[in-house]
Amino acid sequence: MSKNLTSRAEDYSKWYNELVVKADLAENSAVRGCMVIKPYGFAIWEKMQAELDRMFKATGHQNAYFPLFVPKSLFEAEEKNAEGFAKECAVVTHYRLQNDPDNPGKLRVDPEAKLEEELVVRPTSEAIIWSTYKNWIQSYRDLPILINQWANVVRWEMRTRLFLRTAEFLWQEGHTAHATKEEALDETIQMNNIYAEFVENFMAIPVIKGVKSESERFAGAVETYCIEALMQDGKALQAGTSHFLGQNFAKAFDVKFTNKEGKQDFVWATSWGVSTRLIGALIMTHSDDKGLVLPPNLAPIQVVIVPIYKGEEELNQISEVANKLVADLQKLNISVKFDNRDTHRPGAKFAQYELQGVPLRIAIGPKDLANNTVELARRDTLSKSVESIDNITQLIPDILVDIQNSLFNRAETFRDQHITEVENFETFKSVLENKGGFISAFWDGNVDTEQRIKELTKATIRCIPNQEEVVTGVCIFSGKPAKYRVLFAKAY
Amino acid sequence: MSKNLTSRAEDYSKWYNELVVKADLAENSAVRGCMVIKPYGFAIWEKMQAELDRMFKATGHQNAYFPLFVPKSLFEAEEKNAEGFAKECAVVTHYRLQNDPDNPGKLRVDPEAKLEEELVVRPTSEAIIWSTYKNWIQSYRDLPILINQWANVVRWEMRTRLFLRTAEFLWQEGHTAHATKEEALDETIQMNNIYAEFVENFMAIPVIKGVKSESERFAGAVETYCIEALMQDGKALQAGTSHFLGQNFAKAFDVKFTNKEGKQDFVWATSWGVSTRLIGALIMTHSDDKGLVLPPNLAPIQVVIVPIYKGEEELNQISEVANKLVADLQKLNISVKFDNRDTHRPGAKFAQYELQGVPLRIAIGPKDLANNTVELARRDTLSKSVESIDNITQLIPDILVDIQNSLFNRAETFRDQHITEVENFETFKSVLENKGGFISAFWDGNVDTEQRIKELTKATIRCIPNQEEVVTGVCIFSGKPAKYRVLFAKAY
Repeated sequence: MSKNLTSRAEDYSKWYNELVVKADLAENSAVRGCMVIKPYGFAIWEKMQAELDRMFKATGHQNAYFPLFVPKSLFEAEEKNAEGFAKECAVVTHYRLQNDPDNPGKLRVDPEAKLEEELVVRPTSEAIIWSTYKNWIQSYRDLPILINQWANVVRWEMRTRLFLRTAEFLWQEGHTAHATKEEALDETIQMNNIYAEFVENFMAIPVIKGVKSESERFAGAVETYCIEALMQDGKALQAGTSHFLGQNFAKAFDVKFTNKEGKQDFVWATSWGVSTRLIGALIMTHSDDKGLVLPPNLAPIQVVIVPIYKGEEELNQISEVANKLVADLQKLNISVKFDNRDTHRPGAKFAQYELQGVPLRIAIGPKDLANNTVELARRDTLSKSVESIDNITQLIPDILVDIQNSLFNRAETFRDQHITEVENFETFKSVLENKGGFISAFWDGNVDTEQRIKELTKATIRCIPNQEEVVTGVCIFSGKPAKYRVLFAKAY
Repeated sequence: MSKNLTSRAEDYSKWYNELVVKADLAENSAVRGCMVIKPYGFAIWEKMQAELDRMFKATGHQNAYFPLFVPKSLFEAEEKNAEGFAKECAVVTHYRLQNDPDNPGKLRVDPEAKLEEELVVRPTSEAIIWSTYKNWIQSYRDLPILINQWANVVRWEMRTRLFLRTAEFLWQEGHTAHATKEEALDETIQMNNIYAEFVENFMAIPVIKGVKSESERFAGAVETYCIEALMQDGKALQAGTSHFLGQNFAKAFDVKFTNKEGKQDFVWATSWGVSTRLIGALIMTHSDDKGLVLPPNLAPIQVVIVPIYKGEEELNQISEVANKLVADLQKLNISVKFDNRDTHRPGAKFAQYELQGVPLRIAIGPKDLANNTVELARRDTLSKSVESIDNITQLIPDILVDIQNSLFNRAETFRDQHITEVENFETFKSVLENKGGFISAFWDGNVDTEQRIKELTKATIRCIPNQEEVVTGVCIFSGKPAKYRVLFAKAY
């Protein structure tokens, strides 16, 4: 734990990888591309889950659970969805192992136990869910269906990175069914707004809302709404998506209903999800060369108290003060830890909590006892102050709120400084190369233009922030009349 | 929803299957042996999860997440565990589908995308977790590790039943690592006790604690502690298990540590789990011919209010009373629903909530308005009373507690009446045939005896309640000196 991190300036990617492991968030597993989420990392995910779950339920959604496996015949039913995910799906072909006659002590797939129909490990659940909804929906009275599922999904990625891109990841996927196009569109937009609210207010990550260009849309969607965040290295990260699926899945699975007028129609659908990938965004938005910086809302430990002592008597005196402080803070629903381990020196503890991003550290030593003070250190600013013990319980809630807000403001300032409007492709390339961030530019709406820009620069259209806006101008690449002003960026 | 259930006396198994579907708990999916857990069923699981999670954390455990897949070479490392699960595991052999050249519009497994090493979909996670713990443990200072995971697992069962036995199920699995045998044993027993406490106090299901006979042990365990419940049809159900794994997995994965004396030793292990199977036990312990009966602690809706009205004005008057009651009950953390749907008649609503096991139903009609009363109906006893509105908010919490306790007591009385001590095999068979339940009998400790009894009667040893007890007597089957008094039963 004590070794220094690679600095961000030196190698941002290496800094990230080291930080994830050293801060005890996650590590690579024995399974190619799959990670182990360690307790500290998982505690952050639990806090995210709890808040999202609350927001989903407050908007009328219920949780349910659908099978892990998708039979191939269902998987292939919605053609575009199948095409989009076929290239990266794990396939179960057998249901038994047996002793390998050629290798004593080893097992092999039992050739007699081949499945009649292969099962795809879900990369997303539209297919299995819409094949189920078919039986649930007859009339408009059965609508809307507003269901969310917390689950693991598998997408066989060739190049993986902890949290950002893993073969298996954890997520939530909402799948809703509606009687009208308008209602489905409203739901799609509502959920994108909920994601924005969650990511901004809870994770302190500013995002830009918009829709995806056709080529970046979810496979099978009519429109993909998204929130896009900007990382410290100037690369964008898609933080959440909400898809208006039109009647595509209803048609693929023949899900019709009788509407109020007594006529049959196909059901309208949405799906929306965020994943453990958001933890990657969290890390890359706030953390620094000393380690993780966590917004208080997500910190498993919000306040840590470290005693500085020689001998048992001093520890006992400090413990008395510390235990009272712990009790007082817990009454305020603040998560606090008194680290009185005698196996580690204060310096090592300081380094650990800095690395792990605990928002506030309180140190109490003999001088503090004498002066009725504590030393308070903020992780976000690395600033320290000496505070009277009498005031500290009152101070801390406000400071935690201030840290939460400061982190958001700092990230927003950075993000805003890294949105550059450009008028031509030369400037586009130069900004992308030298400054990074989002580049706001006119685009002719043509897929080929988008594709050529991507090939030449690796930048993609992250989103169209104002799809409805009528723009006047020319495409930076083709010179043709522009259809949209869009945000380009290199992205995770 | 309105059609009557098959009665328990008529066909217990059919009653169960119908109830699960009609009460909207779960249904079979398009995937062989896998179920869809519907929102109402999942809400019960969420309540179980929340309480168990609280209990695990209160005893020092943390959550984490390990991969879904287990590479074959790790899966086969612990021989007995591998042998136990090889026959029922789903195996991923490929990581891509492609267009099937012979069937336009269809997909097939891409023969070029065969995995070098097959991946087993976890039937349990000891293998993947202990291959990970190996890197986490060097010294006694790294111990204990107290981790739990909430996850889905897959066991390819040939005969499946909703909740009770499904190919995929949800569960939690705790996996702990310890420096000493004593500590690991203490943990094993502690977790079995926590399960007993949870199942009894929270689910109102009485259980008997004990250990499994060798042949019923978890594959790879040295000792399996368990809690056994009794269903209304006289069959037993294993409600939870906690395994003392000795050093078996540490040896299989070479997980050694330096102890306090500076010597190398293998790490001691436990694992413990309960699953969605418990929902099956919940149903079969409390429910009746009218449907589900839920203990208030687990009921997604604890109180439902049904208005009985003609015309909008009456509804408005009733709503005023009902909304105040909702607000008052919510202040007491009681989950309450005011069902003012105008699409359903009161009778249909009554039937629905009876079927779905809502503990308390309040009906409010015009007479009640005039008399300042409500009609209160208990689901457990099907009894009704008229209560003054002024008292109702005060009454309800006590009644909910009473329902919770009554359900437990009723189940305990039934269970106790169905433990029969027998002295010989003739009585054993007769009791098993005519009365069912647990049969308490002497056993010689011999696996062959156990096997023969199972072949002849389908009864298995559910547990040895007092393993340490020195018994004097002869085995009911072999006539040899008895080693234990054990509980036999036919089981789910």
